[in-house]
Amino acid sequence: MQKIINDPVYGFITVNDPLIFDIIAHPFFQRLRRIHQMALAYLVYPGAVHTRLHHALGAYHLMGSAISELKSKGIIITEEEEVAAKAAILLHDVGHGPFSHALEGRLVKGAHHEQLSLLMMQAMNDDFDGRLTMAIDIFTNKYPKKFLHQLISGQIDVDRMDYLTRDSFFTGVSEGVIGYHRILKMLTVHDGELMVEEKGIFSIEKFLVARRQMYWQVYLHKTVLSAEIMLVNLLKRAFLLAADGDKNLATGGAMDFFLYQFDGTIYREMLLQFSRLDDTDCSFAIKKWSQHPDFVLSQLSNRLLNRQLLKIRLQSEPFDEAMVKEKLAEASQILNVTEDAKYFVFTGEADNTMYNMGDDKINILFKNGVVKDIASIDNPLIHQTISAPIKKFYICTLT
Amino acid sequence: MQKIINDPVYGFITVNDPLIFDIIAHPFFQRLRRIHQMALAYLVYPGAVHTRLHHALGAYHLMGSAISELKSKGIIITEEEEVAAKAAILLHDVGHGPFSHALEGRLVKGAHHEQLSLLMMQAMNDDFDGRLTMAIDIFTNKYPKKFLHQLISGQIDVDRMDYLTRDSFFTGVSEGVIGYHRILKMLTVHDGELMVEEKGIFSIEKFLVARRQMYWQVYLHKTVLSAEIMLVNLLKRAFLLAADGDKNLATGGAMDFFLYQFDGTIYREMLLQFSRLDDTDCSFAIKKWSQHPDFVLSQLSNRLLNRQLLKIRLQSEPFDEAMVKEKLAEASQILNVTEDAKYFVFTGEADNTMYNMGDDKINILFKNGVVKDIASIDNPLIHQTISAPIKKFYICTLT
Amino acid sequence: MQKIINDPVYGFITVNDPLIFDIIAHPFFQRLRRIHQMALAYLVYPGAVHTRLHHALGAYHLMGSAISELKSKGIIITEEEEVAAKAAILLHDVGHGPFSHALEGRLVKGAHHEQLSLLMMQAMNDDFDGRLTMAIDIFTNKYPKKFLHQLISGQIDVDRMDYLTRDSFFTGVSEGVIGYHRILKMLTVHDGELMVEEKGIFSIEKFLVARRQMYWQVYLHKTVLSAEIMLVNLLKRAFLLAADGDKNLATGGAMDFFLYQFDGTIYREMLLQFSRLDDTDCSFAIKKWSQHPDFVLSQLSNRLLNRQLLKIRLQSEPFDEAMVKEKLAEASQILNVTEDAKYFVFTGEADNTMYNMGDDKINILFKNGVVKDIASIDNPLIHQTISAPIKKFYICTLT
Amino acid sequence: MQKIINDPVYGFITVNDPLIFDIIAHPFFQRLRRIHQMALAYLVYPGAVHTRLHHALGAYHLMGSAISELKSKGIIITEEEEVAAKAAILLHDVGHGPFSHALEGRLVKGAHHEQLSLLMMQAMNDDFDGRLTMAIDIFTNKYPKKFLHQLISGQIDVDRMDYLTRDSFFTGVSEGVIGYHRILKMLTVHDGELMVEEKGIFSIEKFLVARRQMYWQVYLHKTVLSAEIMLVNLLKRAFLLAADGDKNLATGGAMDFFLYQFDGTIYREMLLQFSRLDDTDCSFAIKKWSQHPDFVLSQLSNRLLNRQLLKIRLQSEPFDEAMVKEKLAEASQILNVTEDAKYFVFTGEADNTMYNMGDDKINILFKNGVVKDIASIDNPLIHQTISAPIKKFYICTLT
Repeated sequence: MQKIINDPVYGFITVNDPLIFDIIAHPFFQRLRRIHQMALAYLVYPGAVHTRLHHALGAYHLMGSAISELKSKGIIITEEEEVAAKAAILLHDVGHGPFSHALEGRLVKGAHHEQLSLLMMQAMNDDFDGRLTMAIDIFTNKYPKKFLHQLISGQIDVDRMDYLTRDSFFTGVSEGVIGYHRILKMLTVHDGELMVEEKGIFSIEKFLVARRQMYWQVYLHKTVLSAEIMLVNLLKRAFLLAADGDKNLATGGAMDFFLYQFDGTIYREMLLQFSRLDDTDCSFAIKKWSQHPDFVLSQLSNRLLNRQLLKIRLQSEPFDEAMVKEKLAEASQILNVTEDAKYFVFTGEADNTMYNMGDDKINILFKNGVVKDIASIDNPLIHQTISAPIKKFYICTLT
Repeated sequence: MQKIINDPVYGFITVNDPLIFDIIAHPFFQRLRRIHQMALAYLVYPGAVHTRLHHALGAYHLMGSAISELKSKGIIITEEEEVAAKAAILLHDVGHGPFSHALEGRLVKGAHHEQLSLLMMQAMNDDFDGRLTMAIDIFTNKYPKKFLHQLISGQIDVDRMDYLTRDSFFTGVSEGVIGYHRILKMLTVHDGELMVEEKGIFSIEKFLVARRQMYWQVYLHKTVLSAEIMLVNLLKRAFLLAADGDKNLATGGAMDFFLYQFDGTIYREMLLQFSRLDDTDCSFAIKKWSQHPDFVLSQLSNRLLNRQLLKIRLQSEPFDEAMVKEKLAEASQILNVTEDAKYFVFTGEADNTMYNMGDDKINILFKNGVVKDIASIDNPLIHQTISAPIKKFYICTLT
Repeated sequence: MQKIINDPVYGFITVNDPLIFDIIAHPFFQRLRRIHQMALAYLVYPGAVHTRLHHALGAYHLMGSAISELKSKGIIITEEEEVAAKAAILLHDVGHGPFSHALEGRLVKGAHHEQLSLLMMQAMNDDFDGRLTMAIDIFTNKYPKKFLHQLISGQIDVDRMDYLTRDSFFTGVSEGVIGYHRILKMLTVHDGELMVEEKGIFSIEKFLVARRQMYWQVYLHKTVLSAEIMLVNLLKRAFLLAADGDKNLATGGAMDFFLYQFDGTIYREMLLQFSRLDDTDCSFAIKKWSQHPDFVLSQLSNRLLNRQLLKIRLQSEPFDEAMVKEKLAEASQILNVTEDAKYFVFTGEADNTMYNMGDDKINILFKNGVVKDIASIDNPLIHQTISAPIKKFYICTLT
Repeated sequence: MQKIINDPVYGFITVNDPLIFDIIAHPFFQRLRRIHQMALAYLVYPGAVHTRLHHALGAYHLMGSAISELKSKGIIITEEEEVAAKAAILLHDVGHGPFSHALEGRLVKGAHHEQLSLLMMQAMNDDFDGRLTMAIDIFTNKYPKKFLHQLISGQIDVDRMDYLTRDSFFTGVSEGVIGYHRILKMLTVHDGELMVEEKGIFSIEKFLVARRQMYWQVYLHKTVLSAEIMLVNLLKRAFLLAADGDKNLATGGAMDFFLYQFDGTIYREMLLQFSRLDDTDCSFAIKKWSQHPDFVLSQLSNRLLNRQLLKIRLQSEPFDEAMVKEKLAEASQILNVTEDAKYFVFTGEADNTMYNMGDDKINILFKNGVVKDIASIDNPLIHQTISAPIKKFYICTLT
C-alpha cells in the first residue's frame, strides 16, 4: 500500500510502510495537528499557521531523500534502519506542548519537549509491540551508526532543513529559503559521521546565513517576541492565582490538571493528561480568561485575542533604569494598578542561543579525504561571524 | 503611515489608509484569525490551515490591483470609492462562523454568513461614525457604480480569485492555479459593468477549469466530505441532547448560548455572542465531548479528533437501498446500537452548486465593442461543459 | 561517478551512468545547445530562449522519475532497460534541425526529424560499439516492453510532460502548468501498456486542458505564427534564388550544402553536413541576407531581425477574397513590386493537429481492474471537447 | 496604448509610453536579443541562455516599481523624469558586444560597454529628435536628482537587482535569490540621495550575501571561467593570425571589420559596424574556424563547440612554477606543438572585483533621521566580510 500526501512545500510526500502508517494514525501524532509550529508568529506573519504535524511529515520526507542519497553513494543502510530513522524523525517533536517553544517549560512546568518526546515514543512502543525500539535507539543516539542520529539532531539535520524551508514558505520571508535540495545531494558519511562534500560549502554558507536571518527577522521579530512574552506572563499570572486557590480559572479541559495538580513529576498518568493538551486548550482558556475578574489576567487575555500588543523596543545595550521606572509609573497611572504594572512594563534579553544556534561545527569532507570544520575554512563569511552569539535587550511598555 | 504585511502568496500586502487600519484592528476582524478558511480540509491537505483573515487580506490586495488597473484604463474611481471597495472586500466574510461553509446555518441555526456580515458591518459602522457607509452600499449593491459590487461578488470577483489562488497555494494542488495576474490586467468596465477584454478569454477559460477542478479534487474531496458531514452530525446530536435538557454539554464558552438559548432571531445581543464564537470553541467542545457519556456524541468526537473518519464512496447513481440496509445492520451490531447506527451509515448527495458554481455569465468585451457572454463564444471547452451542474451520490459507512 | 546539473525547472538533474555521460558529451548532442526549443516564440515571449538540449535533459529526468515510480509499484524494469530508456529519451529529438518545428521539412527538404533522429542514433551506436542498440529498439517500438516506448512517444509521455512544463516555465504562461509530479505518481503498467490510475483523472484532465491552452496561447500565438511563416517564406525565396543560380546566398557555413547540393536523399555524408547545422547558421544567413540585393529576401530578413513582423489576423472562417486582393494591391504599391507582393500578403490555415494533438486515447485503470479510454469516461470536460480539432484561418498583411 | 509582456520572473511587464515603445522597436535594442546575458555560463547551467534584451526589460520593470514606491512616499518625480529614467535603464547595456563581460574590450578592442552604450544612446537620440536627452543626462549623472542615476548605477540599483534575480532564476541557483520585492519597498530618498530604510537592513544583508554567492558559485564557476578564458584565447589567436595577413578568417559578417580594420578609434561608421555585431557572428566564426588550418584556432574552436573544456583548478595561493612547466611539457608532447602549448596550459587570477564588487557603501536611513553606511552598522555579518576582496589563482591544463 502506498499513499501520497499533498505538501505545498515539497509537492508530494509518500508513505508506504506499515509502521509509518501506524505512527501517523496514532492519537499522539494526530494531536500535533492542533499545535502551531510557530506559536504566535502568525500575529505578524498571517500565513504562519502551519502545524507541528506538517513539519513532522516534511522532516520525514527529507529523511527519505537524505537516506536515498546516501545509499546511492554506497553507504549501507538497511531497510529496517531506514524505517527506524523515518519513525524517529516523525516523532522527534511529539512531546511539544501548546505553542511549542513559546511555552517550553512554562505550562508543563520544568519539562523539556525532548524528554516528553522520548516518554511518548516509549509509550507508543508499548502499543506497537516494540516496533519502535530501533527508532528510539537512533533518537537517543545509542544506535551504532551515529550518522542516523545526526540526521535527526545535528548541525545540519533534516529537522532544521525542514523548519527553515517550511517556515520561510509559510511566512513568505524569502530570506529564509535554503537550497535543501542541493544540501541533501552533498551529504555523505565518513568514518561513521555525517559530513558535507567540499562542493557543498556554498550551500552550507547559505544555510547558516538563512538561519541567522530567520532568527532575527522572524523567530525573534520584535512583535512576535512581545506577543510570546505576554503569553508567558499571562500564564504566570494564572498559575499565581491558581496557587492562591482561585477556582474560576478552571476550563473544564486538559489545562486544569496542569494549573492545579501537576507537581513537576513525570509519570504515566501525567503523560495521558499531557497527550490531551494542545493549542486549543490554551486558546480556549485565553478566551475564557478574557472575562475573568482579575484585571491583569483579563487585560493580557483580551490584548492577545485582539492583537493589542505591548509596545516593544530592541537595542544592543541595557535600557536606562530611570526610563523603565518612568514607564512603570505611567502604566500604573493609566491602568490604575500599583505593583501589577510590572506585567505591562518590563525588560529582558533575547539572544540567538534560544534556538541552540551557537554550535555550528559542520564537517566538510574534501576530495583529498581531509575533514575540516567549516568554521576553520578560509571563508571569511562563515568563520568570523555566524558562530558569534548576539544578544539584544528589549523593553515592553504599555505606551 | 504605511505598513506592509508578508504574504507567501502575493509577496507583500500594503496597508496605508486609516480606515483600513481601523478595520484590521477591530476585534470582529481579528476574530477571523481563529476561523479556518477551508474548514476540515486540513485532514486531507495538511497545509490547508490558513485563516479567513488571511483570505480577507488577500482579496483586499487583489481589489487594490484591480482598481489600479481599471484606473490606468481611464475608469474613474475616486479615492473615497477605492477605500470603500477595499473596506467592503475586507469585511465580505466577517460574518462567517466556526468552520465556515461546513457549518453554515448549522451552528448559528438558519443564519447565512452574508446576512451576518452585513449586520457586523453595520455594527462596526456605528463604532466608526459612519465611515463604512459607502462600503456597505457597495456590498449591498446599492452604490451606483455597479462594477465595484461586481468586483466583490460577481462571476469573476476578487473573492474567488483570491480563494482559488490561496487554497491552491496552501493545499499544494497545482490544478487550482489561475493566472490571476493576467485576469486582473484584462478587466475593464463597459456601460458600468465589469467585463473582461477579448484577449483574456484563455485566462477565463483557465479560471473556470481551475475552479471546477478545485471543487472536485479539494472542496468536495471525498475524505473532506466525510469529515465535514461527521461534524454536521455531531452538532445535530449535540443539539438533540441539549433540547432534551442535557446540561453536560455546556463548555463554559460562547457555544453554550447557541446550544441552549439561541432561537434563530437575529438581534444585537445575539451578535455579541456570535462575535465571541470561532473555531476554538467548536474544537474545544469536540475535545470535551469526546468524553461525554452519550455514545454517538463521544464516538463522533473522538473520530474527528483522531482522524478516524467514516468510509465514503461516491458514484453517479443513487446507492442500492438493500446495500445501505445491510451496512446499517452491520454497524448496529458492531457498535451495539439500534437506531443510532444512522449516525455512522447514511447516504446523501453532493453537487458543485454547493458553492454557487452554476452561474458563469462572464461578459467579454471584444475589440470592436461587441459584448458576449463567454458561454456563447465559439469555444468548445467552455460552452458545453463548465456550466453543467454535476451531482454525485455518496454513502458513508462504518466499515 | 555522479554529476548533478542545475535545472531551474526541476531543481537538479542527476547523471550517473557511463553511457549517459557519453551521449551528453557527443557532438551530436552538444549541437542541441544551439537549437531553440521554441523556434521564434521568443519574439513574443522573451524568456523562451531555452534549448533542445535542455528539453532533452528535462525529459531524461522525468524518465528517471517515471521508471522509479513504476519500479516502486512492482513493475519489473532491469538496470539495462532503465539506461536504454533514458538514452532513447535523451536522443528522441537529436534529429531536429534549425528552429525545430518551424522549419521541419523546409530546410532539410522533405526530411522529418524523427527519421533523422533515428539515423543519428544509429551513427552514434557505431561510435559506441552497439551500446545504443536497446535504446534504438525502444525508440522504434521493437522492444517487447511496449510501455517503455510509450513513455517516450505516447499520449502521456515524458516528452510532452517536459515540454509543457518547460515551455510554460520559460514563457511565464501559467496556463500551461501541469501537475507532472502527480501524473508521474499515477502512472502504472497493465497488460504491458502504460496507463494512468483512476485517481489521476483530474491531473490528466488538467494536462489536456493545459496542452490545448499552450497551443492557442503560445505555440500558435498569432505573432509567433506570423514570424514563423515569414521565416518559411524567407527560406522559400532563398531556395528559389539558389535554384536560379544565385551564388551570393552562400554563407560559407553548413547552410550552403542544403541550399545548393542536397537533393532530398538521406545518406551518411549528408548526415555529417546536417550535424553541423544549427540555429546559428540560419541566423547568420538571415543577417547576411538582410543586405542581399534581392528585395524580397532582404526585406524579410531585415523584418525578422528587427522584429518588424507582418500584421496577422485569425478567424474561424476563410477570409474574403476581395479583401485579400485589395491588401495585395496595397502592398504592391507600397513596396513597388508586382507578383512578389505575395510574400507579404497571404492567407493560410492553422490547426492544433500541427503538433499531433488529435489523438488523446489515454487509458485509465480503475481500482476494480477495468480499463477505459479517458474520452469514454463520464466527464463532460474531456469527452466533448479536447479531442475536437480546431482550425483557424489566418491572413498576413503588410499594413 | 498599453502592452503587456510575459516575463517568467516578474509575471508581466507593462509598456505604455510612446518613447518606450520606440526604444524597444529600435534595431539597436532588438540586437540585444542576440546577446546572451551570461556569456558561456550556459555550458554549466543549461538554463542560462537568457538575453540582454530580457535583462533590460526586467530592469525597466523594477525601475517602474521603484519609482512608484518612491512617489507613494512623497518623493517628487515628474512624468517626464519617470519616462526618462525608464528609458535610461532600458538602454544602460545597449553597448554590450558579443558575450558581454566575457569579451569586454577583447573583440571591440579597448572599448568599454558603458562608453558604447552612451554613443548608441546619442545616436538614437538623433533618430528620436532629442527625446532621449533627459535619459542621457540621468545616465551620465548630470541630472540634478542624483537618486535617479543611483537607481540605474549605484550600490543597490535596479540593474543589479534584476540581474541577480534573473540569473538566479535561469540558472536555478537558489542561493542568488534576493528579496527584491522587499528591497524596493524599503527604498527612500534623503537629501537627494537614494537610501534604504532601517527595517530593510536584513534584506540588504541578504542581497550582499546573494551577490557574493553568485560570483563564486556562478559567474566565476571554475568551468565557466575555463570556457570564457578559452574564448578570449581563441580571439587572441584569431587577431594574431589576422595581423599576420591570414584572410581565411573572414566570415563574411560583421566580425571582419573588427578583425581586420578596427584600430580602436570610436566613430560613427564604427558604431554602425558594431550595431551589426552580436553573439551570432561570434558563434558562426567559431563554427567556421573549427575547420581552419591553424591548429590552435581549430582546436580551441572545436573544444568550445563540443564542450571539451580545459581542466581548471582554483586555489588561494599561486601555483607552483615547476608544476606549470611540467604540464606545459606534457601538453606540448600530446599536441605535438612547442610554444603554442601556452594556449592550453596557463595560469591567472580571478577575483570578485571583476564585477565591481568592491564598493558596498549603501546608506541606511534610521527612523531618527541618522544616516549610516551599512558597513559601519553593528552587524557582524556585513561589516567584516562582504567588503573584503577575494582573489583566487587558477590553472588551466590540457590533462
